[in-house]
Amino acid sequence: MNRLLELFASRPDQYLSGEEISRTLGVSRSAVWKQINRLREEGYVFDAVPRVGYKLAGKPDKLQASSILAKLKTNKLGRPLFLFDQLDSTQNEAQRRLSEGAEEGSLILAEEQTAGKGRLGRSWHSPPGKGLWMSLILKPDIPFASAPHLTLLTAVALCRCIRRLTKIEALIKWPNDLLVAGKKISGILLETRLEEERLVSVAAGIGICVNLEQADFPAELQDKATSLMLAGGEPVDREVLLVAFLEEMEHWYELYLREGFAPIRTVWEALSTSLQRRVAVGGVEGMAVGLNEQGALLVRLDDGRTVPIFSSNIAESTPAG
Amino acid sequence: MNRLLELFASRPDQYLSGEEISRTLGVSRSAVWKQINRLREEGYVFDAVPRVGYKLAGKPDKLQASSILAKLKTNKLGRPLFLFDQLDSTQNEAQRRLSEGAEEGSLILAEEQTAGKGRLGRSWHSPPGKGLWMSLILKPDIPFASAPHLTLLTAVALCRCIRRLTKIEALIKWPNDLLVAGKKISGILLETRLEEERLVSVAAGIGICVNLEQADFPAELQDKATSLMLAGGEPVDREVLLVAFLEEMEHWYELYLREGFAPIRTVWEALSTSLQRRVAVGGVEGMAVGLNEQGALLVRLDDGRTVPIFSSNIAESTPAG
Repeated sequence: MNRLLELFASRPDQYLSGEEISRTLGVSRSAVWKQINRLREEGYVFDAVPRVGYKLAGKPDKLQASSILAKLKTNKLGRPLFLFDQLDSTQNEAQRRLSEGAEEGSLILAEEQTAGKGRLGRSWHSPPGKGLWMSLILKPDIPFASAPHLTLLTAVALCRCIRRLTKIEALIKWPNDLLVAGKKISGILLETRLEEERLVSVAAGIGICVNLEQADFPAELQDKATSLMLAGGEPVDREVLLVAFLEEMEHWYELYLREGFAPIRTVWEALSTSLQRRVAVGGVEGMAVGLNEQGALLVRLDDGRTVPIFSSNIAESTPAG
Repeated sequence: MNRLLELFASRPDQYLSGEEISRTLGVSRSAVWKQINRLREEGYVFDAVPRVGYKLAGKPDKLQASSILAKLKTNKLGRPLFLFDQLDSTQNEAQRRLSEGAEEGSLILAEEQTAGKGRLGRSWHSPPGKGLWMSLILKPDIPFASAPHLTLLTAVALCRCIRRLTKIEALIKWPNDLLVAGKKISGILLETRLEEERLVSVAAGIGICVNLEQADFPAELQDKATSLMLAGGEPVDREVLLVAFLEEMEHWYELYLREGFAPIRTVWEALSTSLQRRVAVGGVEGMAVGLNEQGALLVRLDDGRTVPIFSSNIAESTPAG
């Protein structure tokens, strides 16, 4: 453990002056100050009282593999679990582990991503300690043309889990963004590998903004993104959420392998905020009316024809009212 | 260069006795003998005359990146070129390089693969110096559902290139094996990565049995596989073949991106040995009659219905006569 943290641990609930810390650890005052700031960035909370000193008032909420596994009741999903303090991106790590033969159910978790991946080559903001940034490895025996099903399935599982656990009324924006009151609360990105027409593996990347505060979002996301804590008014235990998600995911995944896409489609449609709205995508504009059996969004054009659209970025125009 | 090879190079066309070599290099007679055997495994040919000695009579046919690039007239395919003496598999290396951002056209070549990958999880026999074992990276901007097109396109390019260069009448067995007189001469395995429904990259693995002799094939392939040299009666220059393939591949790839699958389909059907034959695949049995626009094989059942079949392993039963 860090010597500064040891010192605070040996004097619980006491204020320690900068000079005292500096003397005890044999480092300069400015080194003490720098270290306290670094720990704050990691999620430690210090009360600072001028001319009195610092008190350790809170520790970061760190994920613990042992405590997650102790709570987890899934058959497969989440095992083995690989937990990192920091990764470039959990998707990249998943790809590396797939190349080494990682098995179905493997879960990669990182407290922080330095290059989190979003859809369409965008980045995904992943500050430490306040979100769930993960990649889940699946190896379903399904035709390659069914790959879109898994994206929709993941959105259904996450949406249901959030509703069940927090009472927040999350909705799915096609194909797989979760929205709360119009703001994005999570992102899903599935990377699939095919060998010829055989689906070999899926790395399902899932980012959930759990306990981010408003200030944790960069300027360009201030109006567009929110967190479960901001939406629900109280912090959410990340480990409890993670375990609930994996269990929900396993439920829908097993159902899908047993009964196909039909039940997923029904629930997706019920949870969707995209249907019965006008959408404009890739030159096509019309009313989104449902999903087809491949998982494409069905758009009814103004001339009455209905066309299937696979995922890309849809811009919602006016609500249908 | 190896000191033994240097010694032979300094005395061209001379026989050197084991004792002389041993004395000159300062190593034991048995070390000389071991090294000659090791060089033989690498493709060097030594004439050995009892009580006279050894003469270097042939060097291995080694691929040279500089000489390949000097011959290559493609716009993109084959550049950059990564040439290895030995790899686990060029497909694995391609995946590693894709994770590091390898660009379209990149080519991975290995003189030998220790764990070459075939279709359906099978291994691919890849002895050193006598074949072309490669992976070509493509990044076409096409819908994920078009992935099967690229498999068929690769088979067309390779089949045309072999026919043009060697006059060997290669035929395509659905989906992508090349046959000469009923024996397999090459294998193609495409590994595709999707992000959601966007095709991100393809590693096209291509193995061509160029100058393998009958004894180079393991027992279980003796009846099933052959090489261009065995089929055509003379060795084929591997670099010339490689360059011709990349040029042919680029031609069909550019045509496909410009005009879609229709021209590929026509040529594939003309080169195919699978059509107008009875096939049995996954419970379905009937007459193979063509490809549909997605690249699936159309099979006409005995009741008159025609069903599309995506690639898997088809067992040919009786020819249609």
